[in-house]
Amino acid sequence: MQKVQEIAEKIRTMEIRGAGRIAKAAAEAIRDYAAELDVASMEEFSARIKEVSNLLISTRPTAVSLPNAVKLSSKYSSANVEEARQEIIKNANLFIERADKALEKIGKIGSRRIRDGDVIMTHCNSHAALSIITTAFEDGKDISVIATESRPRRQGLLTIRHLNNFGIPTTLIVDSAVRYYMKEVDKVVVGADAIAANGALVNKIGTSQLALAAHEARKSFMVAAETFKFSPSTIIGNPIEIEERAADEVVDPAVISELSHVKVRNPAFDFTPAEYIDMIVTDIGIIPPAMAYTVIKEHLGWELGEV
Amino acid sequence: MQKVQEIAEKIRTMEIRGAGRIAKAAAEAIRDYAAELDVASMEEFSARIKEVSNLLISTRPTAVSLPNAVKLSSKYSSANVEEARQEIIKNANLFIERADKALEKIGKIGSRRIRDGDVIMTHCNSHAALSIITTAFEDGKDISVIATESRPRRQGLLTIRHLNNFGIPTTLIVDSAVRYYMKEVDKVVVGADAIAANGALVNKIGTSQLALAAHEARKSFMVAAETFKFSPSTIIGNPIEIEERAADEVVDPAVISELSHVKVRNPAFDFTPAEYIDMIVTDIGIIPPAMAYTVIKEHLGWELGEV
Amino acid sequence: MQKVQEIAEKIRTMEIRGAGRIAKAAAEAIRDYAAELDVASMEEFSARIKEVSNLLISTRPTAVSLPNAVKLSSKYSSANVEEARQEIIKNANLFIERADKALEKIGKIGSRRIRDGDVIMTHCNSHAALSIITTAFEDGKDISVIATESRPRRQGLLTIRHLNNFGIPTTLIVDSAVRYYMKEVDKVVVGADAIAANGALVNKIGTSQLALAAHEARKSFMVAAETFKFSPSTIIGNPIEIEERAADEVVDPAVISELSHVKVRNPAFDFTPAEYIDMIVTDIGIIPPAMAYTVIKEHLGWELGEV
Amino acid sequence: MQKVQEIAEKIRTMEIRGAGRIAKAAAEAIRDYAAELDVASMEEFSARIKEVSNLLISTRPTAVSLPNAVKLSSKYSSANVEEARQEIIKNANLFIERADKALEKIGKIGSRRIRDGDVIMTHCNSHAALSIITTAFEDGKDISVIATESRPRRQGLLTIRHLNNFGIPTTLIVDSAVRYYMKEVDKVVVGADAIAANGALVNKIGTSQLALAAHEARKSFMVAAETFKFSPSTIIGNPIEIEERAADEVVDPAVISELSHVKVRNPAFDFTPAEYIDMIVTDIGIIPPAMAYTVIKEHLGWELGEV
Amino acid sequence: MQKVQEIAEKIRTMEIRGAGRIAKAAAEAIRDYAAELDVASMEEFSARIKEVSNLLISTRPTAVSLPNAVKLSSKYSSANVEEARQEIIKNANLFIERADKALEKIGKIGSRRIRDGDVIMTHCNSHAALSIITTAFEDGKDISVIATESRPRRQGLLTIRHLNNFGIPTTLIVDSAVRYYMKEVDKVVVGADAIAANGALVNKIGTSQLALAAHEARKSFMVAAETFKFSPSTIIGNPIEIEERAADEVVDPAVISELSHVKVRNPAFDFTPAEYIDMIVTDIGIIPPAMAYTVIKEHLGWELGEV
Amino acid sequence: MQKVQEIAEKIRTMEIRGAGRIAKAAAEAIRDYAAELDVASMEEFSARIKEVSNLLISTRPTAVSLPNAVKLSSKYSSANVEEARQEIIKNANLFIERADKALEKIGKIGSRRIRDGDVIMTHCNSHAALSIITTAFEDGKDISVIATESRPRRQGLLTIRHLNNFGIPTTLIVDSAVRYYMKEVDKVVVGADAIAANGALVNKIGTSQLALAAHEARKSFMVAAETFKFSPSTIIGNPIEIEERAADEVVDPAVISELSHVKVRNPAFDFTPAEYIDMIVTDIGIIPPAMAYTVIKEHLGWELGEV
Repeated sequence: MQKVQEIAEKIRTMEIRGAGRIAKAAAEAIRDYAAELDVASMEEFSARIKEVSNLLISTRPTAVSLPNAVKLSSKYSSANVEEARQEIIKNANLFIERADKALEKIGKIGSRRIRDGDVIMTHCNSHAALSIITTAFEDGKDISVIATESRPRRQGLLTIRHLNNFGIPTTLIVDSAVRYYMKEVDKVVVGADAIAANGALVNKIGTSQLALAAHEARKSFMVAAETFKFSPSTIIGNPIEIEERAADEVVDPAVISELSHVKVRNPAFDFTPAEYIDMIVTDIGIIPPAMAYTVIKEHLGWELGEV
Repeated sequence: MQKVQEIAEKIRTMEIRGAGRIAKAAAEAIRDYAAELDVASMEEFSARIKEVSNLLISTRPTAVSLPNAVKLSSKYSSANVEEARQEIIKNANLFIERADKALEKIGKIGSRRIRDGDVIMTHCNSHAALSIITTAFEDGKDISVIATESRPRRQGLLTIRHLNNFGIPTTLIVDSAVRYYMKEVDKVVVGADAIAANGALVNKIGTSQLALAAHEARKSFMVAAETFKFSPSTIIGNPIEIEERAADEVVDPAVISELSHVKVRNPAFDFTPAEYIDMIVTDIGIIPPAMAYTVIKEHLGWELGEV
Repeated sequence: MQKVQEIAEKIRTMEIRGAGRIAKAAAEAIRDYAAELDVASMEEFSARIKEVSNLLISTRPTAVSLPNAVKLSSKYSSANVEEARQEIIKNANLFIERADKALEKIGKIGSRRIRDGDVIMTHCNSHAALSIITTAFEDGKDISVIATESRPRRQGLLTIRHLNNFGIPTTLIVDSAVRYYMKEVDKVVVGADAIAANGALVNKIGTSQLALAAHEARKSFMVAAETFKFSPSTIIGNPIEIEERAADEVVDPAVISELSHVKVRNPAFDFTPAEYIDMIVTDIGIIPPAMAYTVIKEHLGWELGEV
Repeated sequence: MQKVQEIAEKIRTMEIRGAGRIAKAAAEAIRDYAAELDVASMEEFSARIKEVSNLLISTRPTAVSLPNAVKLSSKYSSANVEEARQEIIKNANLFIERADKALEKIGKIGSRRIRDGDVIMTHCNSHAALSIITTAFEDGKDISVIATESRPRRQGLLTIRHLNNFGIPTTLIVDSAVRYYMKEVDKVVVGADAIAANGALVNKIGTSQLALAAHEARKSFMVAAETFKFSPSTIIGNPIEIEERAADEVVDPAVISELSHVKVRNPAFDFTPAEYIDMIVTDIGIIPPAMAYTVIKEHLGWELGEV
Repeated sequence: MQKVQEIAEKIRTMEIRGAGRIAKAAAEAIRDYAAELDVASMEEFSARIKEVSNLLISTRPTAVSLPNAVKLSSKYSSANVEEARQEIIKNANLFIERADKALEKIGKIGSRRIRDGDVIMTHCNSHAALSIITTAFEDGKDISVIATESRPRRQGLLTIRHLNNFGIPTTLIVDSAVRYYMKEVDKVVVGADAIAANGALVNKIGTSQLALAAHEARKSFMVAAETFKFSPSTIIGNPIEIEERAADEVVDPAVISELSHVKVRNPAFDFTPAEYIDMIVTDIGIIPPAMAYTVIKEHLGWELGEV
Repeated sequence: MQKVQEIAEKIRTMEIRGAGRIAKAAAEAIRDYAAELDVASMEEFSARIKEVSNLLISTRPTAVSLPNAVKLSSKYSSANVEEARQEIIKNANLFIERADKALEKIGKIGSRRIRDGDVIMTHCNSHAALSIITTAFEDGKDISVIATESRPRRQGLLTIRHLNNFGIPTTLIVDSAVRYYMKEVDKVVVGADAIAANGALVNKIGTSQLALAAHEARKSFMVAAETFKFSPSTIIGNPIEIEERAADEVVDPAVISELSHVKVRNPAFDFTPAEYIDMIVTDIGIIPPAMAYTVIKEHLGWELGEV
């Protein structure tokens, strides 16, 4: 239990961060806890597993990968403690293994949609989106990339460095130039912070502008998302809250402090409606956004009652 | 002639810059030249005026206000030197006077479209757009503004300072957040670098994204433009060239220099199609974009042959 | 002067109402006043005409036909009192004659766009729109009409009676059924209370829903409007105010009075954007909505300064 | 059998009416019939249950909740009469319990999508839609409602009374004013008479106009629908027939009787295409309209052969 | 008069055909008739010119260039026979000269909008459209063309032969492949049979499909049209009739004759709405389609009364 | 094995062609092979079935029905050779039976959506689409058809012959006239070569233009597709390759050979995006295109790993 609490603490304090790392840490915590759990009855086993699950989920209520990891790792059907323990160990390991391979699978599947000569626009710095792009390039496809700066934190600079390491011809533009260059683009590929039950995408602020401009020009808009990014609680109507970050990411506080009628707003993410998304590339294949509900129910195994 | 050449030089070297200032300097140059022109015949008068006109226009071939100022100032109909001289002096003064009052007129006309409670989004730092906003505020309308940062040169910081001086409640956002905040916006008001004969707008990079997002959400998109911003040469098919500015406005050159597969693109302006523009507020009234051709022909007086 | 004041009073008290009748009454008042005006100098003539013009215009500031009638009737160019008087008499009579024939002309011009077999949807009870429909029917075209009820005042009942008198097969529907029947419609024909400088239409509440549903299904949307319905003051930004009528047109006051959290809103008109309007049929021909500015400037003769 | 026939008769004569009440009456009828069914063999049991099921379904062929209620209530898998009987009793009770709680569940789930400050437009008088609105209000959200009159039967008057009882600030408008007020709306919430397999909505005439106007202005359009409203027979292509009601709901028969060229059309419902629907709030969660097929197959349990 | 009648006969029998040739023949006929017209009074002169004008216009009521040629050629203002004669000669010669240069001017103006590297799609075999394309190519721009077959008469084969003579890389496709190749296209350039007062285009069957597919993908759609193609009679509501050609252009009559339930429809032209047209390149400059009314009134000089 | 190889050869050489015939031939080959397979162990049985399956699939890698037929026919769960053999025989026969009845089922289901009086447009010569049309006609519905020529191979001539045999009133048009006649159309019904996992349709070149024009005019667009047309490999990102056919289908080679700058492109199919498809009529019911993924996973039984 102490080990679980340590991991829970690390997730809470953001020592462990990133949807994938959080998910795997939670799965390991449950697995290891179950492996050592010394109880007399199935009732107690069940109660303890539930307690630990709830503890982990409560650490970051808005982290969409956390309930998915806990749910899939803590599954068992046997009424026998030893068998249930083995089920949990197996399921947690399976979850971890799949999470580990998710980026590679997304890269493989998504890259098959990239054609020779494609110009790809991307936004911010998504590992899943970059996995599609670099896999296509390594498969010998002659592609190039247009990367946005992604203000305020300018993660575009990480993206151009990453693509440069692969030798992929890349152009850096400011976020305002997205529509101007859209006519030269063949496909837009972005990542996901979360996918809602109705297929809407939550991702870095500005993503919905790429989607809108791509839709206007009939360019393909692909989202790269691990299945653990699909949000089960949106099925029962819970909205995904948009984090608002510090004003000093946008402008020097000294400038603002003397302007008494001016304030700064800095939302970290925005919503892209399903109708602007052509396909979501997941580790279990390419799906249209309307399939999000099915992924949550069939693949992640959530029932309405328990969300 | 020397004085004209000095002004021409100042326009060429951008010592005199800004569409309005260039236009007025050219009108003054022609007026003063005509006032002192000592010639024997009408033929000579005509030839000299033409020569000076061409000289001035040639200094900045892409400055849209220049040919308009020269055209309107150098008009005369009399075949008598003295009368023609007086016509030019009168026309040039009229042009200067109208240019001086254009921002005020645009402010007055446009502000009548602003309603109490309106939230107005603006981009970059347009004097004409701000004239509409501040006039509405000074007329006692309870409005607020959302101003974009306007990367790469961040003219949004000038805008928020200007609005703060008037006491107008203002919110600063990054360019990527335009669509996210559009749902709270009632009207978008932007300026113009040029208006083409088919009603398309050339303005600061990013303007077309505001227009697209406003169109998507059925919010009103108003352009504030002095009539001397309407481009006569687009009537005969000349495209408006988009200036590309230095890469170091976008990113520290040291970062890029070591990334051999990465380049930077930095266009200063973009095109907004007429269909996303609800109205153009000019110093001669509010017009739909399709009227641009009429403004160029009727108001600015251009004939096809001479453009 | 007394006669003018009587007419002004009748317009103010709505004894004289309806855009056409108001316009003609004003033109007659000016004509008769000018005919009898006994003044010594041109200065006085001019001052008196101006005074009378302003008096008439001030009676119903929102009646769009009033300034147009006054403007066109009170025009003169001569500097001789007797000649100016005759000009006014001639211009006022011309205006009256054209206003009298406007409905007939609109009917003739618009009916040429109706084809044999057309199903036409109309809203409220517009004389101009009905003129197009009945002219087409009398020309032998085999047409039928779908008429909306037009709550709250149910002017649709006037429309079906009028069409029945002509023997035109007509179907009455509730306003909510507009989109349901749009698939069977070939053309929508409506009238106008006012046309703004940017081509937007102000007409009976619900008109914009017909326009939207017609646009969705790519059905032709025609507006029938006399040229005196084009609003000159919108050129300088003045918005057209929407009248709000009494709640008891919508619901029995006894019902509402006991519901303390409920209020009623009852706007008489709505705005239809120019992009949903295929053509405006006027007494001077068919124009696209973007030509409204030209009608106001060229045909009605308004200059920016005087509006 | 007599009791079943009585209930069947009440459904046929519309003594029992309303999708929910019909569904529960049918489930009770089957349950009580099965409970008392005294048969010798499984064959006979099966035949009798089938007979009763068919009888009930035949009473109102267009009532979409009826086949769903019968289907889910009459399910059994055992080949033993007594066990099958118990299965049916259990399944019928489960169906009734779920139907009873459906409105509450829809209210809870849907209300989570309502935000503080939202202005909600609704049409007609849907219990499910109102459940979402009143639940959100009782959760302390500061909301207000715009309710349409809903001609011809003016069920909007029921809606404003209901909302007034909760103390929710409400505005009543005529149906023609929907688009005019859409700019002030944040979300549209309506009920459903039926949901087709392709996600299209059948609901009170006028619903599709709210959807179209919401779509035009990018406002969220939510449908509240119990799962028993999903139509299984649309899977095999059966269209949902639109009931046409009496002309006297629209206009006094005396008025029409003397107008020989005029007729009245009064469809009770219209179709809203899936692309205008952002989400359907059901008792099993929020789904995109494309999931209707899955609800019918997975949740309601219909196979192609049996529909 | 005999000479006029001969030309009229040749136009009627289509010995003289093609909008440009018809227009010039009519202008010549009027010019030569006026030159030799031996009359005593101005009344007679006027009557004869009118008679001849009407004769010419009546030969092909649907040829849009005919009334324009007659109108512009037969203009005079003098009340003196000799002066009026000279005016007509001058105006007719001016018309002929402008018509002769129209294709070249359109080519020059339109080609300025073509950029290096552009892929241009064209339909049928329009001299004006091809003038733009070949002028751009001869100006050294590196362009290529996608030409449709243009069933049923396959004028695309003339187009590819013409472009091949210039050495312009050209791809021939069937008409059904237009949307498939639109993604590779930068601009669509087509000709015009007629332009209506509301800016709609009448051109070879299939043109509106190119326009629709270009609009869908936000590709620029340019129409090349001499000003004499603008239809004056559409101002007063006259529709442009679409010619239906023989079935045997579509299919071997032997095939159809034995299929009693099958008929063939073969319209020669279709309508493209103004909203799908980005610009019309005319011999007097580039205009948006909404300017068609202005071209007809200002440039062609038609008044409502005379059309 | 020899028999399998013969069939494989016939599929490879296109002696057996057409999605349905290929599918049934493959199912028969597997069934007959399994029936006679004389092996000692389950391992060997399993290996041999896999070998045969792979052989058959490899014959036409782009034939979408082939992997579906093999997959569904070669299924077994037993670990006993004799039982597994019987399972395969049963499953293969079931597949064949269903394939045989698919057209009839599609006809029955789809025809229920056709209403009396409908005008139906179809393209090329699809057995499934025609099954819907002829079934509706034989059910007594008074319908008519507009059939496109379908260049280059003109399969429209087969279609009109087929419809003529049923006595269905049919109109033949060229492919360019699709949008011109769309206003008269009620529904478009086409077949499918393949359906991708994201719901996109691959069908005869020109299909996407019908879909676009139907979408523009809000006409219903129905696709008739047997479930074996749904492409499993698109789930993992494999694009469907578009076959390019010989140039001489488009134009006489003699014409082209002398035009050195001209080439011909002749793609056989195009892509229609899911958003333009209202419903897909399959042998297991009507589905929205977003359900394609579910059909592939649930009905066809594909798992991600095995595609």
